[in-house]
Amino acid sequence: MEKMSIPKATLGRIPRYLSYLKELSPDKEPYVSATAISKALMLGEIQVRKDLALVSGIGRPRLGYETAVLIEQLEDCLGYKQLTSAVLVGAGKLGSALLQYGGFEHFGVKITAAFDRNDRVISTDSKTPILPMEQFDAFCKEHHILLGIITVGEGAAQEICDRMIQSGIKAIWNFAPCKLRVPEDVLLQSENLALSLAHLRNQLSHNRQNAKQ
Amino acid sequence: MEKMSIPKATLGRIPRYLSYLKELSPDKEPYVSATAISKALMLGEIQVRKDLALVSGIGRPRLGYETAVLIEQLEDCLGYKQLTSAVLVGAGKLGSALLQYGGFEHFGVKITAAFDRNDRVISTDSKTPILPMEQFDAFCKEHHILLGIITVGEGAAQEICDRMIQSGIKAIWNFAPCKLRVPEDVLLQSENLALSLAHLRNQLSHNRQNAKQ
Repeated sequence: MEKMSIPKATLGRIPRYLSYLKELSPDKEPYVSATAISKALMLGEIQVRKDLALVSGIGRPRLGYETAVLIEQLEDCLGYKQLTSAVLVGAGKLGSALLQYGGFEHFGVKITAAFDRNDRVISTDSKTPILPMEQFDAFCKEHHILLGIITVGEGAAQEICDRMIQSGIKAIWNFAPCKLRVPEDVLLQSENLALSLAHLRNQLSHNRQNAKQ
Repeated sequence: MEKMSIPKATLGRIPRYLSYLKELSPDKEPYVSATAISKALMLGEIQVRKDLALVSGIGRPRLGYETAVLIEQLEDCLGYKQLTSAVLVGAGKLGSALLQYGGFEHFGVKITAAFDRNDRVISTDSKTPILPMEQFDAFCKEHHILLGIITVGEGAAQEICDRMIQSGIKAIWNFAPCKLRVPEDVLLQSENLALSLAHLRNQLSHNRQNAKQ
């Protein structure tokens, strides 16, 4: 089957599907149906069917999905078999928080090194080494890094972005609160934290306005 | 006009609309059209029309929007007139990064205090005071806090969430990588950072797979 791009909401449900499927005994339940999964996880059946169709096709009539195969396909979506190595630039508070954050490896990404231009934060003792920017280009090329995380300030973000692209990076996760220019073949995902908060504030004031009416 | 809940994408464009409108001279340009705005900002006209309709209604035929009124309505959406006070619980690395982050006030939110159960991070010298958890309930009630930010670990998140709700908080921005239970009248927005990264990784591997074919 051609590999599909999986929507974020589906990806978010995959760990739940996996934890359910892994509790089944493969001998007794070689096949599992979307109906059974949706009941066990209290999810809508149509949603489960759509998710599984994206990951594994439509299943066998009356039987459903081969449990062992489905587990493998779901794990594949989360990159279990092949961790993607990422680098992070900007080991300030947000950068350090991301380095400390344990959840990425469950979703197939490992931050292999961080880089900073501030000599005082350089450290090779930590779980993830924090290296000087001078080593950035060589490191990325040597380790075939495809994924870069930008946690520098607004002023330096475009320069770091350009340098990432020059070093062969094809997907950028940007936390700097600014628009970045990338060529067409590079994926860019920006997290605008202020905007997320603004959205929540806006919903809150909307709710309160309506409550008063 | 009844206050509408504004989609996140629209909110994200409002600062651009405002910076354009504020450059106009109100004497010479008392009215501005969606067409003029879309041309100046190189945005699709339909998108601009939809955004402005949400914020200000449909405008006057042939004239468009009254510039000064539109500016006020857009500012209102971003909470310029009335900053919403928020509290943050968990002044670790991620919490500190959010406290340091300058962008929230542009979007109408001010973090007035942070709380932590670790005595060593308590500080009233910093721009935003970091207070002991014992003061949390009284602070929220006294300052009528409606918005809470959770940056504690997975293990403590539900307890903090419950405590926020007991203290009158009506909207929660959660960074802990777990599902939280909230009553129906409380807004919950969870930022699953691992999931964002997983999505980017997945698109990356999808693109590379297709490039090989």
